[in-house]
Order: sequence, then structure tokens, then C-alpha cells
Amino acid sequence: MSEEPARIPADEELETVAELSKRRGFFFPASRAYGGVAGFYTYGPEGASLKRNIEDSWRDLFVTQEGHMEISAPDVMPEPVFEASGHLDGFDDMIIECPACDSSHRADHLVEDATRIEEAESLPIPEVEALIAEYDLDCPVCGEALTDVPVEEFNLMFETNIGPGTSSPGYLRPETAQGIFVEFPQLKQYARNQLPFGVAQVGTAWRNEISPRRALVRVREFTQAELEHFIDPETDEPPLERVADVELTLYPADEQEAEDGGEASDASRTSSDGSDGTYLTMTVREAVEENVIASDWVAYYLGLARDWYDRVGLDMDRFRYRQHLSGELAHYAADCWDAEAELGGDWVEITGFAYRSDYDLSKHGTHSDEEFTLFRQYDEPQRVERATVDPDMSVLGPEFGGDAAAVADALRDLVEHDPDAFDGETVSVEVDGEAHEVDTAVADFSREEVTESGEHITPHVVEPSFGIGRIVYSVLTHAYGRDTVDGEERAYLDLPAEVAPTTVGVFPLMDKDGLGERAREVEADLRGAGFAVTYDDSGNIGRRYRRQDEVGTPYCVTVDYDTLEDDTVTVRERDSTDQARVPVAELPATLTALRAGTTAIDDL
Amino acid sequence: MSEEPARIPADEELETVAELSKRRGFFFPASRAYGGVAGFYTYGPEGASLKRNIEDSWRDLFVTQEGHMEISAPDVMPEPVFEASGHLDGFDDMIIECPACDSSHRADHLVEDATRIEEAESLPIPEVEALIAEYDLDCPVCGEALTDVPVEEFNLMFETNIGPGTSSPGYLRPETAQGIFVEFPQLKQYARNQLPFGVAQVGTAWRNEISPRRALVRVREFTQAELEHFIDPETDEPPLERVADVELTLYPADEQEAEDGGEASDASRTSSDGSDGTYLTMTVREAVEENVIASDWVAYYLGLARDWYDRVGLDMDRFRYRQHLSGELAHYAADCWDAEAELGGDWVEITGFAYRSDYDLSKHGTHSDEEFTLFRQYDEPQRVERATVDPDMSVLGPEFGGDAAAVADALRDLVEHDPDAFDGETVSVEVDGEAHEVDTAVADFSREEVTESGEHITPHVVEPSFGIGRIVYSVLTHAYGRDTVDGEERAYLDLPAEVAPTTVGVFPLMDKDGLGERAREVEADLRGAGFAVTYDDSGNIGRRYRRQDEVGTPYCVTVDYDTLEDDTVTVRERDSTDQARVPVAELPATLTALRAGTTAIDDL
Repeated sequence: MSEEPARIPADEELETVAELSKRRGFFFPASRAYGGVAGFYTYGPEGASLKRNIEDSWRDLFVTQEGHMEISAPDVMPEPVFEASGHLDGFDDMIIECPACDSSHRADHLVEDATRIEEAESLPIPEVEALIAEYDLDCPVCGEALTDVPVEEFNLMFETNIGPGTSSPGYLRPETAQGIFVEFPQLKQYARNQLPFGVAQVGTAWRNEISPRRALVRVREFTQAELEHFIDPETDEPPLERVADVELTLYPADEQEAEDGGEASDASRTSSDGSDGTYLTMTVREAVEENVIASDWVAYYLGLARDWYDRVGLDMDRFRYRQHLSGELAHYAADCWDAEAELGGDWVEITGFAYRSDYDLSKHGTHSDEEFTLFRQYDEPQRVERATVDPDMSVLGPEFGGDAAAVADALRDLVEHDPDAFDGETVSVEVDGEAHEVDTAVADFSREEVTESGEHITPHVVEPSFGIGRIVYSVLTHAYGRDTVDGEERAYLDLPAEVAPTTVGVFPLMDKDGLGERAREVEADLRGAGFAVTYDDSGNIGRRYRRQDEVGTPYCVTVDYDTLEDDTVTVRERDSTDQARVPVAELPATLTALRAGTTAIDDL
Repeated sequence: MSEEPARIPADEELETVAELSKRRGFFFPASRAYGGVAGFYTYGPEGASLKRNIEDSWRDLFVTQEGHMEISAPDVMPEPVFEASGHLDGFDDMIIECPACDSSHRADHLVEDATRIEEAESLPIPEVEALIAEYDLDCPVCGEALTDVPVEEFNLMFETNIGPGTSSPGYLRPETAQGIFVEFPQLKQYARNQLPFGVAQVGTAWRNEISPRRALVRVREFTQAELEHFIDPETDEPPLERVADVELTLYPADEQEAEDGGEASDASRTSSDGSDGTYLTMTVREAVEENVIASDWVAYYLGLARDWYDRVGLDMDRFRYRQHLSGELAHYAADCWDAEAELGGDWVEITGFAYRSDYDLSKHGTHSDEEFTLFRQYDEPQRVERATVDPDMSVLGPEFGGDAAAVADALRDLVEHDPDAFDGETVSVEVDGEAHEVDTAVADFSREEVTESGEHITPHVVEPSFGIGRIVYSVLTHAYGRDTVDGEERAYLDLPAEVAPTTVGVFPLMDKDGLGERAREVEADLRGAGFAVTYDDSGNIGRRYRRQDEVGTPYCVTVDYDTLEDDTVTVRERDSTDQARVPVAELPATLTALRAGTTAIDDL
């Protein structure tokens, strides 16, 4: 039996997980035969399976159980999409290139590493340049002085060209979300034009990081699971009662700010603060009632996700929800919280929960010719005043020449947004920066009462955005443990059965006297019953147990000489290392019950 | 009940499927709000689900049941990978750009369209240019004469830059296979250095097509499911007996060549030949015995895949295996067959089955510093002659100066490949293009008998490569049918339950008197039991049936007033439109049995 489970020291943790991950096939740096390239990882057989199981579990909850849609949009998208989304202009990091050795660095990170400044990312470039000069910062690779070396914006999107030539630039999407937003005009039809509805996507995204680091944390290619929940902000409410009693560990902005000089303000990346003193532990209901979480929708998803993290194997003692500080918030976001996992002593963002208002759909509505709105029916038709113009082109034409049509458009635009501007005898509109005065009579301004059955609204968006690779990494790290079994040390992953790459290891005691053949039959039966099975006949049984423990296989089945007599096998459980004898015919049902937790190994 | 099932005319088929696919959410051109970009499609909710179900079914058979590994490698890979694989130099199409309107075209396609030439792709560029001049070909867009316009090679890989600057070019992988080959040194360890083993990957690949066309057939971004089966060509045999009785429809190369002037030779893309006369129908066993299929490994996979295509819903009367003509074969491939599906009258390649020999691993072994070999243990140790050199650097140094080390390396290289070259008094080696004579005594050439326990071999590769998007498209097209139900025409997809996006539609007869609430409970129960469920309470029941028929939902369940009395519901089957009354408590078991085919609707 198992004794003395022990967490390994924080400073050894990540190295241990990286070594295990490469040796046993969870993940490893890609293309190493050619020297590798930073920020790209290959998931080996165990890791690809773990990752897929986590994705399936996410899909089960956030798509199927919640009744949302899931789509799969292209990874490469054309430039106008990112002009609209703002990524082309604003998705930058600050880069400084060493004039001596040509190495590139994030200027804000250099400043942060050398000073007590925490959020250099939010400073203007001249200020960062001034700080580099003030602190006499050197190139971390070759030691060259970086004073007076220009800091520049570096766009993090991978660029390519679609088709021959360079006339149609495309980008690897920096987030899966844009593939959903851009198809809203089509998607709303699948939702039969009814709010609220949610559209999810699990897929790849890319960020051309200047300095990839920390294994699966800061990579250039990664998997996101994003849900865009389109809601009517005036009428739609989340089903809060479903998660009201879920208990959350919250780290609100004011608690972060109260700590010494904002030491934890960059906690999502580098803070090593892990004290519990500043966390609030409360239910979703309490967090909403006490206004700790401003948006009910965000609160709903924090509750829903909290139990999911637990379900896929995160250690909830190494987990928190951290609110964005006001400086971190995107300008369109009313409230944002990150789910964070503690890894090797640092807190790492694994999910962002954002109330994005109508920002994304409005942007695409403005930049494209399509409607990114939905028609909201009034409860009953309403009498509303509508102001209209009907510009007299026979007057505008001679007066404004080639600008006449533009002036007429400007009048039509103005009447929609500011009908009171037509109250005087003339009205002023601007065309190409030039002001024109138009007689209101020529504009044919009028107001009338009309009956309207509804109005076009731009839905708001609530977005939980999960970083699947970081979650895989966190689950592996939290699952890793060592203990002593029968006087021998072992390493194991206590992965939940739902996500473990293999559910059952099947071993013949020895590969002779028909034990191998019988074990192969058991293997085939279990596989046919839908279990993920591994067969192993190499080395002694103890060694085979260790092998499965190390990749987190929850159950092992051994076929021995008794099996040939009475058709029973030994079932052994990973965490407790307890064993029970089970008839072969009952194996699938027994393993299903063990996995579901409806029976325990000791009750068999 | 259903009558007169009818296939729609071939020339309407693809248009009908495209219209349905957009309207109901299978797939549609991406980013249409911005005018779209050719060759990129978004899978809507129904399509993403169908695609995922097909991938899962593939995984179940080709990974789980066959006992292979699956990995997930990055989509972006560094340049050296594609230098080694040959894609950087050879993965080109012939492009001609119209000098008048700047439109780009595939030069070989222009020639094929205007002449009786079938494989212009395999012609040298000057010959294609000559044909363009000879036939006076014009730009298909603007009519400009293309005589004397140069034809150029256009590399089909999407290029990008990894990190800042342009010093580290990367490419979107043109096939998932390279992500497997390049990690062979690591993967063989997971296989414990034992052949045979298979490694699969389901992922995205890209080809920057000059002229994307035909919906999901010729696109720029697509999903592949590839299996690389690494084998020892001397000792490993496929388990042919498992598929020996599977019946194949084969279209061998000699039958294609016998047809009028090779009319069907480009059948994988454009031939509209559908005659059965030239096909051989035989079992896998017969095909191997009669040597119609040269490789037993390829034959094994043709057999295995044939039943899978049937399982996921292809119409096997619109399916064939076509052998590559000698002109189509890659130089390293011993034998290649394509699986082809007939769509709208044309045959489309949906899978390639290739015996790739040691081509890929040898290339990476040569280009990188890693070993792409495996150690093959002899049955018993063997005495072998080994020739060695031990160059005397104290002589080579003075004689060759800075070249001395290179000369010594060249001698060591030579003795491995051609020991007989050392038979004379001097031996000649080449360094940087210059020949050097070395005294064999100075090289210290010797032969000795040694005992070896095995040798390093480069495994061979058998590769089934599935185009998932094309298979999704083929399944949709083959599943589409129209018939008349109760005098009313309906359109439906007869998708197998395993791949249908939704398994059960749940309807309340009306949304009142508690029927809606009861139906919601039934929905939740079925969802909890793992079924993909859709709830619909809009419109009359007939209309809801039509809606589900059109997306291929195999079963619908209606909650009516009797349900409130006796707790039974109506189960209705899509294809037959037959109905049965089933107790709610038995619904999951009944639907499971119907789906598995262990019971029939008429037996309920």
C-alpha cells in the first residue's frame, strides 16, 4: 500500500515535469533534430491523449450541457478581419534589438527585471527608452549597453501571403474568437435570430512571441477553447441559481492594490505570491450580492468553470480567480477575471473571463458591409418619433458639385444621431474635413411618429477564453506526486480517470502458459467496451505498475494463473495501490463504476 | 411512411449540397463579411460536429483498435524540415500571370483545358510555354494573349517568419506527416525501439493553391488524418487475414491505360468516367494473390479503410480504389492507390495509400544530426567482416594542412561504403571538389572479423493519408436524398448514427400544458446519457421532422399528451419514417440498440 504522499519542492517541480513529459511522451520541444525553434512543442502520445480528453471534457460542459453551438473556422484569415478587430494596429509588444549581437528582447521585460516597475508594458515607448538609459541596461546576451537603442513596436501576428504575390496578406489568427465574430451574420441565422446564444471554438492560435519561455506557458502556437456568448444586455440573465453555491477563491483588484506597492499586480505572469490572507473565499451568490464580481454573467462562468477545473484535475488549493487591475483592463471590458494556477511557485493565467460589451461586433459592423446586429422585438409595438431628411439634389448638386452626394449622405447620417441639429435654419455637416452649411428646408427635414415593432441591437459578448496547453501543463504539474509503496519510492500522476491518457493497463503475469493470450482477450474486450487500454508484458509486475503510475493510469488489471482457473483478475488502483479480485465478465461494469466513483476498490 | 427515394441529378448535386451546407450550418466560405478569400471554409455547428465525429471514428479504428500512437505536432515548422523533406524545392505548381489583368492561373490547367493533354503537370516548363504559344491560349479572365508570357514555379507552402526579423523562416506544414517523421528519434523511444509501430496525427495542413475550387475539394487549409506505419521491410507482415474477405472495387493502372487514350488518367481530379466495366471486384486475398496490389501492406490498409468508408456513410457504389499510373508515382513510392469518391459526376481523391519505403526517414537522417534508424537484433550474433581506417594525422597534417581533418573524415566515410577502394597502394578521396591521393598505409586500412548482434536499419513507411474535409464533403453528398413522405417531398441526409451531428431530436407536441417541461426533462436525460440532442418546439411536428431529416438526425422523440398519462413517447426513424411508442425510462437503451442495429424500429 501507499504511504507518505509528498509534494516535491517548488523549485524542482517544473524541471521534474519537463523531464517526465519528454521521457514518457506528454510534450517536448518540436523539431529538435534541426536544433528546434523556441515556442513550439509537440504533444507525444500521452500528451495528445490528455489534451484531447481535456478538450472533450470542456466541450461536454461548455457546449453540449450548456446547449451552445461549436464551429471550426480557418486558422488563416485575411487582413481586413484584423484591421477591424484592432490586432493589426494594436497587437504589439515592445522590442529592442541589440546592435552588437542582434538578439531581440522585450524592452518592457528588461525594465521590469531591473527595476521595481511592474507593468512596463503599459508605459509609452519614450518612457521605456528613458528607463533603459536611466538604469544603464545592458543586453542580457552579450552585455552591450542598450542606452539610445530604439525601442519599437513588434506586431505579434504571424503574417503570410494568400495566393501568389503579396496583394492578399493573411495572418495566423491570434485568437480563435475572431473566427466566431466575423461569421456572426451567418451564425445568428443558425440561432434563428434569438438571443442569447453561444458559439464555441476549440482550435489553434498563434502569437509570434519575442521571447517564448516556461514550457507550455509562453509559446508561439497554442490551443484555445473559447466561448462567445451573445446576449441582450437589457433582458438576458445568466442562470445563476445553477452555480450559486459554488465556492470561489477570489483575489479582487483592491486586495492586490492593498498589497505592498502592487507587488502582485503582475501576478498572472511573474509574481511568486501565494499567501492566502488576501483571498476572499465566498460562494458565487455572495460574490454577486456583495458586488465583488460586477457582472452576473462573469460570475456565472467563474462558478461553472471552477467545478470543471476540479473535474479535470487541478489542485484547487493551487488555484485562484484574480481580477484585472484597472490598468490591465482592455478599454472595452467592464470587468475581467483570470483563472490562475500556481506552478513551481508562480501564478500562471490559464483562462480569461471577460465581459466584452458590444466591442467586437460593433467593430466588424463598422468595417464590413454586413449587419452585425439582431432585431429585438418590443413586447408591444411602440410609437416613436422618427426624424428624416430627403435632401433636394436639384439644389445640392449645383451648390456642392462633386461633393453633393457626400453632403446628402452626411445629412442622412446626422439626422439619425442628432436630429436636434436640424432645429435651426441651417445645419452644418462635414465632408472630408470641410464644413458645409445646408438650408434645413433643402434637407427637407421632418419628424413623424411611427409605429415600430422592435429595433436592431448589437449583442453584447461574454467570453470565457481557456488556454488548453496551459491547463494541460497545470494539470500535469498538480497531478505529479511521489510517495513510498512497499518501501520503494514511486512517482505518479493522480489524473482523474476522465482525462487520463489510459484508463486501464492490462498485464499478463508472465507471457507464457497462455497468460499472454488470455490477457490479450481481456485487452480486446475492454477496448471494445470503449476503454482506453494499454497492454504491457515487459518487466516484472511492480515495474509495470510504476510505468502506468507515472503516466496516470488509474487502474491496472493483471491476468495470472488463477485467471485460467476461475476467470478472475486482479484490479489495482493507482492512488491507494489497493487491489481487488474481479470476475473478467464484470470488468467493464466494475471499471465503469470505479471511474464514476459509484463504487470503491475496497468495496469490491 | 417514406416512398420513392431518389438520387438527384448529378449536375444539380453539388449546388444542392452547397446550398444546404450554408443554410443549415455544415460549411460555408469563410470571412464573407469582408468579401471572403478563396479556398477557406468555416464549418458551421452541424459540419463541425459531423467532421469531429468522422475524425473520432477514424481515430477509433486507425489508432485505438489498431494499437497505434497519436501525436499532435505544431502546424508551423522551421525551414530545415522542408529542405530535408524536399518541399522547399519541389512542392511547386506552374503559374502564369496575365500581364494585362494580373490574374494568376495554373499553366498546366490552361493547357489541359484547351488540349487533349491529360497530365500537363508532369511536363517541363518550356514545353508548357510552347503549348501555350502553339494553341494561342488567352487569359481566361480578360482574354489577353499569353504567348511569350513566362511560366514559373510557384511554391505551394505558406511562408512566415518565426520571431522578429526574417532570419528564421517557417512554413505552414503542407502535410501532417512531416511532424511525425521529424520526431522519429523521440517516437521510437515511446515504441521501446520495437518495429513495427504506427504513429498517427489528425491535424491541419495548408497548400497555397493558385486556383482553389470545387468547395471542400481544392482548398488552401484542410484537415488530414495520416498514419505513418514504420515497419521492418524484411520481417514485418501485415495481419492480412483480418481483412482477407473484404471486397474491393479496384481500378488498376493497366485498366486505366487500356481506356481510350488514357481518358481516365487524371481521374482523381477531373475525369467524369463512371463506368463499371473496367473495375475489378475482388477480395483483398485475391488482389494480393493475383498481384493486382503489389504491396501486402497497402492491400491491408485498402481492406481496413474500405469498411470504414462504408461505416461513416459513403455510398460504396460511388467509390473505387484507383492505382496510380507510373507517371503519377513519386519516385520513392513502390505502389500507390487512391480512394476515390464520385461527386457530381467526377471522381475525387479522398485518401492516398502509399508505400513510401525509407525515403522520408533517410532524408531526415541525411539532413539532420540525429539518427533516423532503429537497431535490428539478429536472431543470433553474426561474424561479419568490418573494414576500418585509422588515418595517421602526423602524416596527413603536414601533407594536407587545413584540409587534413576533412581528408580523414572522407577516408572514414569511404571505408564504410566502399572498402574495396583501399585495395591498391593509394586511395583517392574528394574534399570540396578536389581529389586527394592518400597512401593506404597512412590511412591504416585493415579488415577484421567481428561479432555483431544486429544492425541499424532505416524503417520503411506505409502511409494511409486521409483528406478529412473531402470525406466530409463526400459523405454529405452521398447522404443527400429526396423522397416523398405522405405526399410531401422531403430532403434528407441518411447519415449513419455514428457520425450524424445530432442523434436525437426532442419535440414537445406543443409548448403548453407542461409538455415543454416534460420534453426538457427527456432532453436532459438523453443528454446525460451521452446522446447528442437537439430540442425543437418551433412550428408543427411535420416541419420539425423535415428540419431534422435535412441535417441527418436519425431519431426524433415526441412528447405528447399521452406522455403525461403513461410516460411513453413516440420514437420516429428518419429513413423509414416509421414510428414506435417507447416508455421514457427505456429511451436511452432503445436508442442505443437502434443505433447499434441490434433492434429495429418495427420490432419495438
